[in-house]
Amino acid sequence: MALPLAGLWPPVATPFRADGGIDEAALVRHSRRLLDDGAHGLAILGTTSEANSQTLDERRRAIDAHLAAGIPAERLLPGTGACALGDAVALTRHAGEIGAAGVLLLPPFYYRKVSDDGIFAFVARLIEDCGGSVPRIMLYHIPPIAMVGWSEALVGRLVEAFPEVVVGMKDSSGDKANTLRMISAFPGLAIFPGSEGYLLEALRAGAAGCISASANINAAGIRRLYDRWQEDDADALQAGLNGVRKAVESRGLMPAVKAVIAERTGEPFWRNLRPPLEPLAEPVRADLLADPAIVDLLAVVPA
Amino acid sequence: MALPLAGLWPPVATPFRADGGIDEAALVRHSRRLLDDGAHGLAILGTTSEANSQTLDERRRAIDAHLAAGIPAERLLPGTGACALGDAVALTRHAGEIGAAGVLLLPPFYYRKVSDDGIFAFVARLIEDCGGSVPRIMLYHIPPIAMVGWSEALVGRLVEAFPEVVVGMKDSSGDKANTLRMISAFPGLAIFPGSEGYLLEALRAGAAGCISASANINAAGIRRLYDRWQEDDADALQAGLNGVRKAVESRGLMPAVKAVIAERTGEPFWRNLRPPLEPLAEPVRADLLADPAIVDLLAVVPA
Repeated sequence: MALPLAGLWPPVATPFRADGGIDEAALVRHSRRLLDDGAHGLAILGTTSEANSQTLDERRRAIDAHLAAGIPAERLLPGTGACALGDAVALTRHAGEIGAAGVLLLPPFYYRKVSDDGIFAFVARLIEDCGGSVPRIMLYHIPPIAMVGWSEALVGRLVEAFPEVVVGMKDSSGDKANTLRMISAFPGLAIFPGSEGYLLEALRAGAAGCISASANINAAGIRRLYDRWQEDDADALQAGLNGVRKAVESRGLMPAVKAVIAERTGEPFWRNLRPPLEPLAEPVRADLLADPAIVDLLAVVPA
Repeated sequence: MALPLAGLWPPVATPFRADGGIDEAALVRHSRRLLDDGAHGLAILGTTSEANSQTLDERRRAIDAHLAAGIPAERLLPGTGACALGDAVALTRHAGEIGAAGVLLLPPFYYRKVSDDGIFAFVARLIEDCGGSVPRIMLYHIPPIAMVGWSEALVGRLVEAFPEVVVGMKDSSGDKANTLRMISAFPGLAIFPGSEGYLLEALRAGAAGCISASANINAAGIRRLYDRWQEDDADALQAGLNGVRKAVESRGLMPAVKAVIAERTGEPFWRNLRPPLEPLAEPVRADLLADPAIVDLLAVVPA
């Protein structure tokens, strides 16, 4: 059963210079390294990318910077959701026009009490307005942050109405039971757990792969489990992933991931996040870098 | 005690044509009527305006359409908050450059677990990036929707750091106790309840005025209470406001307000909302228009 976009798609973190601007060269270097480490493609412009802290123009330029650096469009899975339909259309259409592998679509997330009908109407209008340029859409389910999510009933309606377009879902609910339920309910849909913390169990159930913040620092390790989940050492590989995941998650996932990237690249600006998010406090960062799982991770020289 | 921007500032609803575009002429007509009905100014581009369902360009044009129609900038209080600092800067600076009365600032609302330090940094950067063009800022507190809010501690820090800039707050928490607590804690700050449902009590406590969705249909009534809150008929006026408020709120505040505007103007497109929001279902609309409070409201011919 070949699911669309099957594999590992790290949600690529974004490097901000001291003045707050995006360092596009450093961004693309990081993306290349993720591909070298075994990522099948790049889920740029997601939550970990701080995409919603970027203007539409900055987001468009992040896509284009990858193309300009020679990374093929079919390795890009940009996040294109927005509160305003017009913004979502502009970015989704751009992704379609360049031939991106697909897009990760957040539901509009300002208003909280919205009905499935209202979200359905948003997606239907988005697809209509993109016309012939519509790319494949992966629904991005992250209710702990967006508060608005994709219910099972809504996913069913969308898949029925747009079977060629709505082809998958990233489940960042943090709720393993929800991921397993969606895999079971929609066997043709490519379901990606938003954490590698239960990747083995998800792959055994039929998940398509993984899109996880900590893949920014552990792409090689996650890829190894993805390749070997039917082998004898799969449980040991999962345990190894869990150590790294816990090390960053317990200190604040996004700033911790960026602190490790800064250490690995020797580029301290990677520690920066855009307000309202903040870098790790210095003692927490020191503690993180002393964590055995992170020490081991940083000791590995990439192939 | 003259508080900045004291008075009634309706959060102006936005008319969408059948194709989803904004009818700027109808928007400005509605704004003019609100001023004719006694509004001191116009809180355009708020939650009721569906501002976050509009692109940055549409929002800038909504401001400019008011100016082009001869409505003075000092009667405009646009919402300029955004998840991306760059977007918030662009719109806030524009408001400052045209000489707007001030801006209503949402905190960045995508990430939920943000610290007061992180939001403070966002505002500090916003003010710095606006430079000499920074307008007066009213903090827009609407945690039931934005989820992120302005805590009392954060308001205190902002007022201390930027006393000439941060001059007020709209409190749409729906929590009367919070409004009264903020009025008591910050006597120099202009506090506006986000509902006229407790306007009399708020004015008695020292509120600056009112910014409420239902002011789109009942500006004259709210203005009357604002002018007469120390008179003998104030309680009766408050009761009258409550009848109208309840009629719309119980049916869905924003679509109900727009349904009443459509009825009053004879312009059915006013019923439209942008996805993910939806118009009232037809039976609910019929029921709303038969509500005695709305029948009475629509029977009044404006002076």
